[in-house]
Amino acid sequence: MIKVFGHTSPDTDSAASAIVWAWYLSEIQGTPARPFLLGTPNTEAAFVLKHWGVEQPQMLDLAAGDEVVIVDTNNPAELPANIADASITAIIDHHLLIGGLHTKTPIDITIRPLACTATIMYDLMGSAVEKAPNQIKGLMLSCILSDTLEFRSPTTTPHDRAVAEDLARHLRVDISAFAAEMFAAKSDVSAYSEAALLTMDSKAYEVGGKELRISVLETTSPAQILSRKDALIAAMPGVAADKGADQVLLFIVDILNEEATLIIPNDLVRTIAEKSFGVTAKGDTVVLPGVMSRKKQIIPVLAV
Amino acid sequence: MIKVFGHTSPDTDSAASAIVWAWYLSEIQGTPARPFLLGTPNTEAAFVLKHWGVEQPQMLDLAAGDEVVIVDTNNPAELPANIADASITAIIDHHLLIGGLHTKTPIDITIRPLACTATIMYDLMGSAVEKAPNQIKGLMLSCILSDTLEFRSPTTTPHDRAVAEDLARHLRVDISAFAAEMFAAKSDVSAYSEAALLTMDSKAYEVGGKELRISVLETTSPAQILSRKDALIAAMPGVAADKGADQVLLFIVDILNEEATLIIPNDLVRTIAEKSFGVTAKGDTVVLPGVMSRKKQIIPVLAV
Repeated sequence: MIKVFGHTSPDTDSAASAIVWAWYLSEIQGTPARPFLLGTPNTEAAFVLKHWGVEQPQMLDLAAGDEVVIVDTNNPAELPANIADASITAIIDHHLLIGGLHTKTPIDITIRPLACTATIMYDLMGSAVEKAPNQIKGLMLSCILSDTLEFRSPTTTPHDRAVAEDLARHLRVDISAFAAEMFAAKSDVSAYSEAALLTMDSKAYEVGGKELRISVLETTSPAQILSRKDALIAAMPGVAADKGADQVLLFIVDILNEEATLIIPNDLVRTIAEKSFGVTAKGDTVVLPGVMSRKKQIIPVLAV
Repeated sequence: MIKVFGHTSPDTDSAASAIVWAWYLSEIQGTPARPFLLGTPNTEAAFVLKHWGVEQPQMLDLAAGDEVVIVDTNNPAELPANIADASITAIIDHHLLIGGLHTKTPIDITIRPLACTATIMYDLMGSAVEKAPNQIKGLMLSCILSDTLEFRSPTTTPHDRAVAEDLARHLRVDISAFAAEMFAAKSDVSAYSEAALLTMDSKAYEVGGKELRISVLETTSPAQILSRKDALIAAMPGVAADKGADQVLLFIVDILNEEATLIIPNDLVRTIAEKSFGVTAKGDTVVLPGVMSRKKQIIPVLAV
């Protein structure tokens, strides 16, 4: 039985695309497979699974020699510590090649510069997509709407959009109404601690000798998060120490206004903000107009 | 203009698949591209280019920021030293993921456990294959026959074979006759020095703390190479030092008899031979029946 899973701190694409691919392997390819999670899904992912009537996958328990398919990441830091002892049979991802994973034999690796893992799966499945039940089609649509922020993110390609629109047509889903429900679920972060908010969508990135955690919160209600700014700043050193990082950068992405607010807790982050984004950052936050994508608009420009 | 190239010490798949993909990018995708070489092609690759009337690509001169597509390898040790300064736009390969390359943004990466890079390209091209001139189809066929040793290698998949047979049908090529010509060209190694023979198809591999060069010579005339055994053994320490390795292992693959002869210059290689292949190695060579593939039958079992 092949174990299919995405990254730690599962978001919609990571949780749902694992379910989609496990379905494809089991039902179309005839290779028994099951999806697993590497943590509690975020509020949007939990909403999406419930909306489509899909059971939440179990937490991964990975043993040496297990056959696995990795989706939505190729970064060992976002995978179980013992991933090197597993037998990786495939990787499907849309992130930059981080260069940390290696395999003992040639395997199937498909990485595409698309907005979403589910879009790549749609392409890999070919005509088998037609055999997918509505649940699976709904999960794929949800992944694309989540990762593209309903086509607002600059990571969106015409192909991602076309695939989402094709799925929505089949499902008779009103994209705007459904995306609004998803984003409302994602924006309800009242149950999370500050430390949880700082790590729920966070990637390690090294620049200029500094080990940074680049954390992003996508929301339709930035004020809800910004009202906790002081507590978030207070929680940053502990989270950084816990992750072995020098600093946490928190970008609050306002989905509807298409801008990000970066919290500035100290002079290091102030320097990073000014050098990376060409802004003047005087207070303890700075607004970055148009910035919505860590992958396209944050990671490539980061300078310390 | 995108620069398309394979690995150092170019063999048929590495040289010809770069030409094939540059054709596809330029003529079908409308993205100007040119193939390049990272060294002098081996005698088989040179024969193949001449046979299909294709000009030998120029040697690569790689500048920082150049847009490149890497084919038939994902190993930085087999690429120019300044590959990290290039802008890699795609990787198409059929080797194990070595884990050394990384990219600044998401790119197209297609790795498949097939015998040959050209087979993957055939799949990626889809119906555009029909538009390929006979030269390009001929190069693709040659790649598959070379990497599968005319379907004898255990790396051969039914799909590689089906693609080769489809191409041969279109080209009205007699596979056995043409493969025999290719292998005769590959077996004519009289012009090479011992050091050149030890490095012409050689991959670095670390096992048990030892840095090894795993060199393979595929031939229809093993006696021609074995007649130079003493000189090959004498050349090994110099080649190993030059490559920063502890030892060169030379496997002479007899294409027709489907076996390999490993040269045993010292007790380290004797131990490796016995531990890895379960043989008793008393003399200065040992025959390994059925062993034809470094990827499938040598690298995975190596033990020191």
